[in-house]
Amino acid sequence: MFFQVVDILGTIAFAISGVLVALDKRMDAFGVVIIAFVTAVGGGTLRDVMVGIHPVSWMTNMTYVYVILGAAFFAVLLRKQINYLRRSLFLFDTIGIGLYTVVGIETGIVAGLHPIICIALGTMTACFGGVIRDILCNEIPVIFRKEIYATPCILGGFSYFLLREFVADTNFIFVIAGLIVIIVRLLAVRFKISLPSLYGAEEF
Amino acid sequence: MFFQVVDILGTIAFAISGVLVALDKRMDAFGVVIIAFVTAVGGGTLRDVMVGIHPVSWMTNMTYVYVILGAAFFAVLLRKQINYLRRSLFLFDTIGIGLYTVVGIETGIVAGLHPIICIALGTMTACFGGVIRDILCNEIPVIFRKEIYATPCILGGFSYFLLREFVADTNFIFVIAGLIVIIVRLLAVRFKISLPSLYGAEEF
Amino acid sequence: MFFQVVDILGTIAFAISGVLVALDKRMDAFGVVIIAFVTAVGGGTLRDVMVGIHPVSWMTNMTYVYVILGAAFFAVLLRKQINYLRRSLFLFDTIGIGLYTVVGIETGIVAGLHPIICIALGTMTACFGGVIRDILCNEIPVIFRKEIYATPCILGGFSYFLLREFVADTNFIFVIAGLIVIIVRLLAVRFKISLPSLYGAEEF
Repeated sequence: MFFQVVDILGTIAFAISGVLVALDKRMDAFGVVIIAFVTAVGGGTLRDVMVGIHPVSWMTNMTYVYVILGAAFFAVLLRKQINYLRRSLFLFDTIGIGLYTVVGIETGIVAGLHPIICIALGTMTACFGGVIRDILCNEIPVIFRKEIYATPCILGGFSYFLLREFVADTNFIFVIAGLIVIIVRLLAVRFKISLPSLYGAEEF
Repeated sequence: MFFQVVDILGTIAFAISGVLVALDKRMDAFGVVIIAFVTAVGGGTLRDVMVGIHPVSWMTNMTYVYVILGAAFFAVLLRKQINYLRRSLFLFDTIGIGLYTVVGIETGIVAGLHPIICIALGTMTACFGGVIRDILCNEIPVIFRKEIYATPCILGGFSYFLLREFVADTNFIFVIAGLIVIIVRLLAVRFKISLPSLYGAEEF
Repeated sequence: MFFQVVDILGTIAFAISGVLVALDKRMDAFGVVIIAFVTAVGGGTLRDVMVGIHPVSWMTNMTYVYVILGAAFFAVLLRKQINYLRRSLFLFDTIGIGLYTVVGIETGIVAGLHPIICIALGTMTACFGGVIRDILCNEIPVIFRKEIYATPCILGGFSYFLLREFVADTNFIFVIAGLIVIIVRLLAVRFKISLPSLYGAEEF
C-alpha cells in the first residue's frame, strides 16, 4: 500500500516531466500523451524487454495507464500554475527514481543476474524513460551531459548489494537502498555536486 | 487472400514513404533500404517485442521482405515519377493504417490484454514505424506534431471494442473497425480536421 | 580461445569508437560509459530482443562488461594519444565487424530463420551498435550515409550461405565468411570504393 502510493507519486512526476518537455517542443495532444507515457514507463519497458518479461509490466497493470493519462491531462490544463509545484515535483521525481532503481535491481535478482547487471538494470529503470523522451524530442539525453540522475542510482545499487551481505530482511534493504538514492540525489542537487568534468582544465 | 492484398498494399505504401524521407536526407542505398524496412515493419516489431512474440512477425514471413525490397527498388528508380502517384500512395497508406491498427488490436486480445492496451498496441502498430523512421532521420516524429495518424486509429480501436459488445462475427468487426480508421482519416485530411491546438489562443 | 580474443578485440574497438563520439559531444563520465556500452553491445541486444533470446547475451557474460568498462576508462585517460592507435583501432573494428556478422548469422540459423533474415541479423549485430550510438548522440547514423560497414557484412553473409552448399565444416565456414567481411571492408576503405550514388549525376 505504502509502496503503491510511492510508485504512483513517482509515475506522476515522470509523466509531468514528459508533458513539460513535449509542450516545450509544441507537440499536439497525442504527442504530449505519448511523451508522458514514454517518460514514465520507458525505462521499465526497456528493462523488461531485455530481461525477457512479457508482456512488459505496464501492459498488465492499468493503474499506470490511468495515472499517466490523468497526470498528462492536469499537467496540460494547469501548466501555467505548474511552476509553483516545481519543488514538489522535484521531490516526487527523486522519490520515483529511488523506487524505480530498487525495483529494477530486484527484477535482475529474480532473473538470476550478476549484481553489476542488476545495478545497471536499476539505473536503466530509473533513467532511461528520460533518455527515450529526449530522443523522441530530438535532443541529446540530458542525463548524458549533466549527471544528476545516474550516480545516485549506482550508489544506491551498490548499497543494496552491500546491505545484502549483512541484513536478511529484504524489505529493509529495499527501503534503505531506495532512501540512499533519494538522499544522495537531494544532496547532490542541493550542494551542486556533479561528476568531475572530463574537459575544461584537462587534468588527464 | 483479400487481407493479404490489403496488407501488401499497405506495406508498399509504408516502404515508399520511408524511401522518400531517406532520399530527402540524401542517404545512400543501404540507408534507403533500412529506412524503408523500418517504416514498414517498425511498428509491428515494437508491438511484438513488448507483447513477447518471438521471433518478431516479419522475420518468419518472407513476403514482407520481398515486397519491401521491391518497393524500395522501384521507389528509388521512379522517384521522379512518384509525385503522380501521391494520391494512390496516400490511399494505400491509409488502408495500411486501418489494417495495421486492427491487426495490432487482435494481437493484444490474443495476449489477454485490457482493451485500452489493445487500442494502444493497434495505434503503435500503425504509427510507430513512422516514428522510428523519423528518429533515424533525426527529426521530431511528425505524428507528434500534426496529428493525422493516431486519432483515427484510436477511434477505430474504440469502435472495435464497442462492436464486440453487439456483434459475434469477428471478421465483420475486423473489417468495420478497419474501415472506420480509414474513413475517419480520409475525412480528417479532406476537411483539414485536426486536434484542438494546445497553444496559440491559449484557451486553457 | 582464439574466438574469445577476437571477440574482445572487437568489443574494445567498438567501445572506444563510442567513447570518442561521446567525448566529441562533451558528454560527462556517465554518458561516455553508456555510449561505449551501447556501441559495443547495442547490435547484439537488438538481435537478441527481436529473435527472442532472454536475458540478452551480454547480461549473462560479465567479460563484456569488464572489457567495455576498462576500454572506456583507458580511452578517456589516453584520448590525446589515441590518434596514434587509429590504424590498430580500425583493424580491430573491422575484425569485430567480421566476427559479429557471423555470430549474428548463426543466431538466426539456430532460431530456424530464412537465410536472408540471418544475413540481416548478422548485419544488424555488426552495424546497429553504431546506429544506436549515433541516435543517442543526435546524429543521422553515419552508416546510412557513407556505406563502409554494411555491404561487407551483406557480402560476407551471402558467402556464408554459399559455402554451406559445398562445405560441411561449420568452423571453416565461420572463419572464411568472417574473413570475407574483413577483406572486403579493408579493400573498400583502401581503394575508397563505395556504393554507386543515388544522387549527383542523377543516372536514374
